[in-house]
Amino acid sequence: MPKIVDHNIRKRQIAEASWRVILEQGMEGATVRNIAKEAGLSLGALRHYFSTQDALLEFAMNLVIERVTERITKIALKELPPKEKVLQILLEIVPTDAEKMAEMEVWFSFVSYARHKKDSFDAQHDGIYTGIRKLMYYLDEEKLLRKNLTIELEIERLYSLVDGTAMHALLDPNRIEKKQIHALFVYHLQSICIEDF
Amino acid sequence: MPKIVDHNIRKRQIAEASWRVILEQGMEGATVRNIAKEAGLSLGALRHYFSTQDALLEFAMNLVIERVTERITKIALKELPPKEKVLQILLEIVPTDAEKMAEMEVWFSFVSYARHKKDSFDAQHDGIYTGIRKLMYYLDEEKLLRKNLTIELEIERLYSLVDGTAMHALLDPNRIEKKQIHALFVYHLQSICIEDF
Repeated sequence: MPKIVDHNIRKRQIAEASWRVILEQGMEGATVRNIAKEAGLSLGALRHYFSTQDALLEFAMNLVIERVTERITKIALKELPPKEKVLQILLEIVPTDAEKMAEMEVWFSFVSYARHKKDSFDAQHDGIYTGIRKLMYYLDEEKLLRKNLTIELEIERLYSLVDGTAMHALLDPNRIEKKQIHALFVYHLQSICIEDF
Repeated sequence: MPKIVDHNIRKRQIAEASWRVILEQGMEGATVRNIAKEAGLSLGALRHYFSTQDALLEFAMNLVIERVTERITKIALKELPPKEKVLQILLEIVPTDAEKMAEMEVWFSFVSYARHKKDSFDAQHDGIYTGIRKLMYYLDEEKLLRKNLTIELEIERLYSLVDGTAMHALLDPNRIEKKQIHALFVYHLQSICIEDF
């Protein structure tokens, strides 16, 4: 069914155009008109794919989550020692290159925007919390966690650590660099795992 | 000089009006026109106090930081055991009641907005990082930190933990409650300090 395929490809192209507009002008500039222009489409043509601005933005936001999830799944399927695998996945969530920085910038703009569109979409449930839970239970099953940890608090602590670091990497990239983020996550994992990396 | 006092009081009232507008309508709605209306002033009268929208927003943002700093200073001056003092200060940064939630909401909107106004103001340098550094060195001077910690990484870790938790408390208040945030911070401080709380 080539028509449906084309339809989905075109929707993705429009979503990517919306990312570029958000990166350049912020959410204030992400009007249907500006996005259509960036995508090289007429307003009418764009409306064929997305009937409202919110439908477009929700699709564009979900595409960010989809891309991050794809990259994480790829790491999860690799043959790696458990602690190394967990470390690589955590580092994947934090923006340390231009592409991930752009994704997080878009995510950040969406979340801020969505705060005042409570009925329409729920940008805060990005799957990171669920992912962190899984990672902690994975370390536990592999018998790598130290004794005397409170696992629910460790999940919460790692979740805050990752999201806080991601926010700092986005907002203040000159202060905190990739090497430091790597060192921080290794340090934290060492503090909760039984063996040294 | 009553005139100057009046001028400053009026500026604060306008800033507080801008917070209410941001809370209700988001940054998109924080136009000079809407803020003037909320403050019960004409556009001309508002322009007397702030010549541009950015000048107003920067003042309003700094007022948020000033209020948080005031509350923290009050705790810092209290007679408290060092670890209890650090805990109370950390909890002050995280929004756990309606007033702090509103402040952080305003802060979050500002940061997102300011990302695309690079020349005008620098919302990310909110003093939290400097504060966290001081707290860690305070614990160190009081000889409360465990041996074998890397203090620079502990500063970074606590900074991410606090900001990540603050963001989660704001974006997902139904998932994480005041009691859990308290438990998380006690848990983290226990993990880096020599004695139990």
